[in-house]
Formats: sequence, structure tokens, C-alpha cells
Amino acid sequence: MATTADTDAMRRAIALAARALGATSPNPVVGCVILDAAGQPAGEGFHRRAGGPHAEIHALNAAGDRARGGTAYVTLEPCDHTGRTGPCSRALAEAGIARVVYAVGDPNPQATGGAGTLRAAGVQVEQGLLAEEAEAGNAAWLASVRLGRPYVLWKYAATLDGRIAAADTTSRWITSAESRADVHRLRAEADAVVVGSGTARADDPHLAVRGVDGAVQPLRVVVDTEATAVRPGARVLDGAAPTLIAVADDADTTHLKAAGPGDEPVDVVRLPRAEHGLSVPALLAALHTRGVRSVLLEGGPTLAGAFVAAGAVDKVVGYLAPVLLGAGPAVLGDAGITTIARALRLRMTETVRVGPDLRVTATPGDSPADSTTTAVPTSHKER
Amino acid sequence: MATTADTDAMRRAIALAARALGATSPNPVVGCVILDAAGQPAGEGFHRRAGGPHAEIHALNAAGDRARGGTAYVTLEPCDHTGRTGPCSRALAEAGIARVVYAVGDPNPQATGGAGTLRAAGVQVEQGLLAEEAEAGNAAWLASVRLGRPYVLWKYAATLDGRIAAADTTSRWITSAESRADVHRLRAEADAVVVGSGTARADDPHLAVRGVDGAVQPLRVVVDTEATAVRPGARVLDGAAPTLIAVADDADTTHLKAAGPGDEPVDVVRLPRAEHGLSVPALLAALHTRGVRSVLLEGGPTLAGAFVAAGAVDKVVGYLAPVLLGAGPAVLGDAGITTIARALRLRMTETVRVGPDLRVTATPGDSPADSTTTAVPTSHKER
Repeated sequence: MATTADTDAMRRAIALAARALGATSPNPVVGCVILDAAGQPAGEGFHRRAGGPHAEIHALNAAGDRARGGTAYVTLEPCDHTGRTGPCSRALAEAGIARVVYAVGDPNPQATGGAGTLRAAGVQVEQGLLAEEAEAGNAAWLASVRLGRPYVLWKYAATLDGRIAAADTTSRWITSAESRADVHRLRAEADAVVVGSGTARADDPHLAVRGVDGAVQPLRVVVDTEATAVRPGARVLDGAAPTLIAVADDADTTHLKAAGPGDEPVDVVRLPRAEHGLSVPALLAALHTRGVRSVLLEGGPTLAGAFVAAGAVDKVVGYLAPVLLGAGPAVLGDAGITTIARALRLRMTETVRVGPDLRVTATPGDSPADSTTTAVPTSHKER
Repeated sequence: MATTADTDAMRRAIALAARALGATSPNPVVGCVILDAAGQPAGEGFHRRAGGPHAEIHALNAAGDRARGGTAYVTLEPCDHTGRTGPCSRALAEAGIARVVYAVGDPNPQATGGAGTLRAAGVQVEQGLLAEEAEAGNAAWLASVRLGRPYVLWKYAATLDGRIAAADTTSRWITSAESRADVHRLRAEADAVVVGSGTARADDPHLAVRGVDGAVQPLRVVVDTEATAVRPGARVLDGAAPTLIAVADDADTTHLKAAGPGDEPVDVVRLPRAEHGLSVPALLAALHTRGVRSVLLEGGPTLAGAFVAAGAVDKVVGYLAPVLLGAGPAVLGDAGITTIARALRLRMTETVRVGPDLRVTATPGDSPADSTTTAVPTSHKER
């Protein structure tokens, strides 16, 4: 039975973990709080970046001798794995921690086993406190372990009638400054931001994070199948963040050879073609290999349609502006859905006003509607 | 300075008025509460239907002699006009009412002047208590007086990506049973429900109110320019509610001569053509002449586009289903808007979850966004 002190400590650990969202991949975010034997705060910490100390180590260093006989609250099961850092299970036991409370078990087969090691060392171990909150904080990373590919959040901004631009392609600004600032927060939390060639050509987007203190810049990815959309001098090729151009196996990328910052070559990945454009699974596999665990898909409609068709959208965040156009490109292009029974049914998990706009968050899954024709998409698995 | 008793009585009068929403046109909804000289409830009433007694008369009848020396709370300025009923101003004075408190002045030039008559008769008169709430309760009627045409609420139901059907035109059901029930409430509150020929042809809609206790059926209106969409046997031609088919001046309506209930002729109105379809102002004028003060426009995209182009949408209620399609007809068709600077900018006034769906209410007006190109539509005025 968790006490209030237990719950408070775990909630603090979850808040600490959240500070590093977007900065730790391919690792999860983790927070740790240590109370001493008398139940007083002795130390806390969070995992700040891959290769750096784990949350438990930060907290143990802060607690020093006061860790002895104390309790460690960790958002994720302490690792049992010697990677770039030693196993946390052993560090906790050696510091004399008497009890470890963790929220979520580690699903990663390489790292799991920490709880067993701790118990074998005589430490009291409990799992599950605030598990739901802790899972939500690590949703993208946990899903990426489960799916074997990066977690994909599709973000769009559209008018109430589902347009992303007017008939003449003008679109500045459909959504408000508040919504655009909110998108920078999403970028900061993602490992990679992905757009297609249509967006690259129409908007010359920069895709880096602005206005978010301490943000780690995501990898900027342009899916440019024919290698014709991103030209030397494109804003996405500046030095503000790393950039990757995904092209078809046979595309000519001569123009990218010296188009990076300092006339360096641009990082290019060659992928197999799909029926239209590049293979989405191959793209996600390539990003996964590079340590990307969460992707912010920023469209446009063609690429978003390909991701929906591939079953590779795990969350949808739509910014709806109170604007009507009656003409212009639609927010989502061909996703291979031709009849209502095959529609992608989602569940709205949040609706929030952002300035004059509305932000709707939804995830694929059964609709509680009375439809007898609900089609639940099967998540694509790469392995 | 209004006392709590004043406010309570007016709030009750507003609630009484709302009971008849959709039943009183061409009149407004009005509620009345009478407190006796000692401040005790003596009588109350509301205007139930055009041609029936006004709210004040119902309340006076209920109060009897206890009206003498009492206070009457009325949501709208008492009329000074002898129409189908006598002027309420005189009835209140003759019953010995000492004080009249009303929320909103009567903007109707035929009926206004009641306050002056009451004052001349020695009655204490106060205006403005809960005026905003009372105006909201009569929003459609007040706007119709101001605009000289019926107030138009455009309702739509669409997927998150702005589609009203899949590519193969299947659409059952995009929104939930809860949303569909909510639409019946909107129909019950409207004087007329309007659809276009595309909807008539695709859906054979019934358009009557179901499932709302005591609802007065709205006039069912199909804009069928060429008189080809509504055929004998169409559900909209049954006896559940009155029906009006709007056609072009030169349309052949022979097939409607005996297609009404009991083989009666269908009610047809002939209107001038516009560039596409019928003239929206002419349609609204024809409805206004028939006593329609509020219109629920239920689409489809072509007709909605024509209304938006005519500046004849006063409120938008969208039901957004958590569904993605990526193809299929868009919720709003050509509204003559070709560039973002000409977009119809709205203000969201309400967002509510309805079952699994989201209902968004918005009204035309300045957006607080940072756009420098905001275009505010000019309301169409017929006179």
C-alpha cells in the first residue's frame, strides 16, 4: 500500500523525467527520487542524454551516504545492463538502498532484469506505483520498443473545413501564433521531424525548434524521393539542427554533395520505392537504426496519407483554426481508404483551446460509436 | 440595483421562454414571471406559439388579483401593438402591475413602445436585467430583425480531415448516435431545415425532428434548382412536417403536382437563378415572408458554399468525428474564396464533446489571431 510520501516522491520523479523529453533517445526518459531512512528527501536526478549517467546515478550521487537504508523511487525499472554506464541495479544495492519502488517495468530485453538483481541483493522491490502516469510520460519510447520502429505523431494544422491552404496555395497563417509555438514544443519532444517533398518545395521549412528553452534539436528529415525538392540553400540545410534527406535508391543527389553547412555533404539515406514515393516501413527502419524513437510527422497530405496507409500513425494532433475556405488542398491525401467501412477510426483523448484555435489529440483504436463497420487499423510491425 | 429576487425571477422567465424555442416564429420567445406586492410568486407564463397569448397574458391570468401592486419580469419589452392579441403594455397597467422589469428592448418597429406606454400609465419600468442571457435565448430572432432575413445556422458533420463521405460516397455513420440526436435538437429549435439537391439525391433525407418531446416540426426545404432531385415518394414529401421545394423560375414541376401527402400538390416556390443554383438572398427572403426566422442549413457542400459566398451564415456548428478518410467530398464547397486573405474567419464560441465526437460552435467575426490579412465578411442585408 503506497503512502502519500511514496506517491509524492514518484510524482516528482515523473516530473523530473519529463524535463528530458526529446533529449535521451535512443533511451527512455527516467526520473529518480531518493528518500533517506527517515523519509526525508536525500537526492534526485533524471537521465539527461544518452551516454550520460542514468537517473539513479544522479540521485545516488546527490544523496551520498544518506542513501543507506533509504528508498529509491524510479519511473522505470532500474537497468541490469552494462552499456555505456554500469547497471543501476548494482549501484542501488551497493549504495545500501533498502527499498526500490518503480512505476513501469523495462520492456527492453537488453535492460530488463534489474528488479530480480535487486531482490537477489536483499533489496525490497515494488512495481506499479503511478504506472499509468509514468507510461504516459514515456509513451513514445515504450511504443517504439513494442513496435520495433519509431513512434509516429502526425501533426497537422487546418481550417475547420479541413484545408491546409487556399486554392492559390496561400496559407500564411491559418493557425495562430499560439498554435505555432505549441508545435515547437512538439518538435522539441521529438527525435525527428519529417516532411515530404511537397512541403519542402512549397514552404522551404526550417523545421528546427525555436523558442523552447534547453531544447535538443530534432533530426530534420525530408522525404525527397526524386531528390528534386531540397536544393542547395534550402533553409533545412543550415546548421541549426542535423538534417537527413531520404531519397530513392536511384535518385541523383549530386547537388547535395556540398550543400550542407560549411559546404559539407548533406546526409542522405537511400531507400526502396513504394507504389507512391518511398517505403514508409523502410524509412522508419532507417530512422530507428539512427536512434530515432519518436517522429513528428508534419505532413503534408501526400506523406501523411502514405503513413496512414502503412498503419504508421500512432497519434494525431490537429490544430483546427476557426477559418473556412471552401477550396484548397485537403489536410490528408490518399491513404488507400475508399469506403467508410475502411475509415481509420480514432479515439479523441484531448481537446484544448490554443489561442483562437482548437487542438485535438486522437489515437487509433476502437471508436465507442454505434458503427457496425468499425475498421481498426493493424499497426505495422517492422520485425 | 437588482435584488436577488429580481435576478431569480428574470432567470426563471428566461428559462420559461426557452421552452418554446422553435415554436413561436415569426414571434420571439418570451417568458414572464409576476411577483405579488409582497414579493411572492403569483404567476408565470411563456409565449407558446404565434397567434396564442403573449407571455405576459399567461402570467397575468395565473396571477389574477395578486398582480395588483406586483412586479412583472419579462425577457423582452412588453409589446405596444394590437396584432392577433392586444398590447401587453396596456394589459399589465390595467392589471395594476406597479413595476415592470424587462431584459431586452424590442427591436421590432411594429411592437416597440411598450415601455413608454407603461411609464405613461404610472408604472415603474426598468430595462437591462440579465440582458445578455435573454439576448442569447432569442439570438436567432433578434438577428433576423436586425438582418431582415432569417438567421442561418450551418450545421455539418465531418471527419477530422474534413470529409463528409468516403470516395465511394458511403457515409453511414461518420458521426455518432449522440451527435445525430443532438442535430434533432437543433432541428427542433429551427423554423426551417434546408438542404440542397445533392443531399436530397444522395441521402433521401427525412429532415423531420425525431426524439425531441413536444417539438414543433420545422419547415423542410429542399433547394432543387432544376426540380430533378425530389421525386414522388421521397421521404421529405411525407406528412411528418410541412415541406417546401425551392426551384428555378423555369423548372418543370409537373411531377410534384400530386406528390404531397394525400396526393396533394407539393408546396413549391419559384426563385431567380444565381451564377450557380438559386439566389440565396431570394431564398431567404421567400422563407422570411413565410414567417421563418431561423434556418438550420444542413448542407451539403455546394449549398453551404453558396450560403458562405452570400455572407449568409450566422453561426457554424460542426460535429467532428475522430475518423480519417484521406479521400471523399469535402464538407464545404466553392464559396468564392481563392486566397487566404479572403478566408472566412470565425471565432470559436464553444467546444463540447458529444459522445465520441466533438461539437465546435463558431460565429463569423474578427479572429484574435496575428493575421494581418483577416477578412471580415459583410453580412448580407436584404433590405
